[in-house]
Amino acid sequence: MKLLTAIDSMKGSLTSIEANQIIADTFTAWGHQVAQVAIADGGEGTVDALIKNKNGQKKVVPVQALNGRQQFASFGWFESEKMAIIESAAASGVQFLDGTLATHPKNTSSYGTGQLILAAMDQEAKKIVIGLGGTGTVDGGIGLLSALGIEFFDENHQRLPAKGSSLAKIASFSKEKLDPRIQTIDIQIAADVESPLTGEKGAVKMFGRQKGLLESEIEPYETAMKHYQSIVTNEEKTLSGDGAAGGLGFAIRIFLKGTVRSGFELISEQTDLEQLIQQVDVVITGEGKMDYQSLQGKVPIGISRLAKKYQLPVIAFVGSFSGDDVLFYHEGISVIIPIVDQIMTLEEAMTSADELLKRAAKRSLQLLTLLK
Amino acid sequence: MKLLTAIDSMKGSLTSIEANQIIADTFTAWGHQVAQVAIADGGEGTVDALIKNKNGQKKVVPVQALNGRQQFASFGWFESEKMAIIESAAASGVQFLDGTLATHPKNTSSYGTGQLILAAMDQEAKKIVIGLGGTGTVDGGIGLLSALGIEFFDENHQRLPAKGSSLAKIASFSKEKLDPRIQTIDIQIAADVESPLTGEKGAVKMFGRQKGLLESEIEPYETAMKHYQSIVTNEEKTLSGDGAAGGLGFAIRIFLKGTVRSGFELISEQTDLEQLIQQVDVVITGEGKMDYQSLQGKVPIGISRLAKKYQLPVIAFVGSFSGDDVLFYHEGISVIIPIVDQIMTLEEAMTSADELLKRAAKRSLQLLTLLK
Repeated sequence: MKLLTAIDSMKGSLTSIEANQIIADTFTAWGHQVAQVAIADGGEGTVDALIKNKNGQKKVVPVQALNGRQQFASFGWFESEKMAIIESAAASGVQFLDGTLATHPKNTSSYGTGQLILAAMDQEAKKIVIGLGGTGTVDGGIGLLSALGIEFFDENHQRLPAKGSSLAKIASFSKEKLDPRIQTIDIQIAADVESPLTGEKGAVKMFGRQKGLLESEIEPYETAMKHYQSIVTNEEKTLSGDGAAGGLGFAIRIFLKGTVRSGFELISEQTDLEQLIQQVDVVITGEGKMDYQSLQGKVPIGISRLAKKYQLPVIAFVGSFSGDDVLFYHEGISVIIPIVDQIMTLEEAMTSADELLKRAAKRSLQLLTLLK
Repeated sequence: MKLLTAIDSMKGSLTSIEANQIIADTFTAWGHQVAQVAIADGGEGTVDALIKNKNGQKKVVPVQALNGRQQFASFGWFESEKMAIIESAAASGVQFLDGTLATHPKNTSSYGTGQLILAAMDQEAKKIVIGLGGTGTVDGGIGLLSALGIEFFDENHQRLPAKGSSLAKIASFSKEKLDPRIQTIDIQIAADVESPLTGEKGAVKMFGRQKGLLESEIEPYETAMKHYQSIVTNEEKTLSGDGAAGGLGFAIRIFLKGTVRSGFELISEQTDLEQLIQQVDVVITGEGKMDYQSLQGKVPIGISRLAKKYQLPVIAFVGSFSGDDVLFYHEGISVIIPIVDQIMTLEEAMTSADELLKRAAKRSLQLLTLLK
């Protein structure tokens, strides 16, 4: 039997790469052939997943991290395609938030992510994919833009520092010193967040609190973000995805002409998924929590839809499932296998997810081949 | 696909009949053929299981129940074979224990179970199977024997009443008035208890407490049981199964020449299981708790061994599993499917066992037929 395994990460338990390896180990031990596709949706693990899928390298460079300190950060590099994959979290991630004033949104920026773009351009990148997950800033992307040479000025035409508190003060900006190499590069954004820049579901109101804004700071910060928006674009409404990563989505779209790709599109394109899928008998996918949200185009459903196109059966291993399973059958998932197999707490399930997935894979294989 | 389902009861959640019906409903809904064999091991549900398997009837008769009161009790009747199935719990079960002195072991007896044997003989039974599970008495079977005409006397040759407190006083007994019909009947005992009559693992020391003996009463009661044993047999050691049902196993073996059958033998013989099994593609079994004890010849393993003989795959649905699964594969079980499929408490699992089994059956069927 030939299988393709493409399981999404089970947050807090298993990365996509680890989950796929468990499936591969189980099925190859019984003589089956397993191709692996690591899943990436722009969030944590995107670089690792693509390096795994495409035998890429990691490039490590010094950057100014979210907390203002010099740190080493890495991006993925694919020499034959001259392509870089950058996670915004690498230099500007929530892992740098420490609850002090130094990492309050007013004082942080996405500058380091801009430096990673510069480093990728130094490699003569033709294409840069930027994954916008797990970012800790809410600077509307002015940090990233500043690193690339765009300048923001206050009403006295004084240059503003690249940090959140500058948003309210921007009176004008200049692209004069923007690194010219950027024009020649295909820039793509991978984001699983559909927020616009501003508004109730925007970067500030939806995500500001988890990045350190106090309740009383939300409204003034939202006003500042709207002000920034009005300066740099005539668009009254921003687009879905603009609010990802504290507004990085918006900045990259407006200033760098970046195009937004879904996590599934990214994986599908980067791995020739449609070709791969036609060579197997069974497709395996899965995720930590499969529910109605999964139907909104998350990666496992993207994969099952593709498998359905070629009438291939799909097994989904999940940490938990809720919803009407018939809706998932319509999307091409043939059977949903929850990996929990005994009385346990959620914590126990999280820490033993590898064993649970291993046992679920074995049981499933036994049933699949029972009548042969 | 043709299947045979023979799942043991999941104690506190599902009877064997209910569990089989869930499997049958799931598989027949998808066009498969399902034969059902309800499991009985001599304990609660044995009569119902055999009536279900063999289209028997229930006969209801008045008896003197364990608590001394007149109650209606039933037994299973199979007219074409002239066979009766009696559960000792029907007239002498723990359900009659009320914590009062009236139901203390010294005051209770298995008399009612003897009356059910009489009623079966009134039907001209040729064979009587007595299931010894869930009994509330510890009378060494003297109640049952008294109902059939055996008399027990004290040292003054005064006839003793049929109750636990008489055990210590028995000086002699007489079979003179034993119902002569008993000689012509094949009497079988179905028991899943391997206790001898006396000793550390015997009827008193192992089971006396749960039937109401106080800690201080255990030793004197054990002495009384040993005294009774010494009066009625020269055997120094009693046999496995003698201690079942407070000593009913012993009484039926010694006085009525009953032979002990395992639950699996009973089911196997009564349902022509070996014939049935040869007509299917897959065998389904299961139980509430599958563990090392299951390997000691409990019914599911008996079934898997038989399936193995005919190289048939066996799926076991279990409430919980512990142990080395390879040992179970050696006994013919192809795959063990725990029905728990999400984070839940034991109590939640017990109360939703029907839904859990239904979902597990559906998933298994989907996998079984995925590659067709």
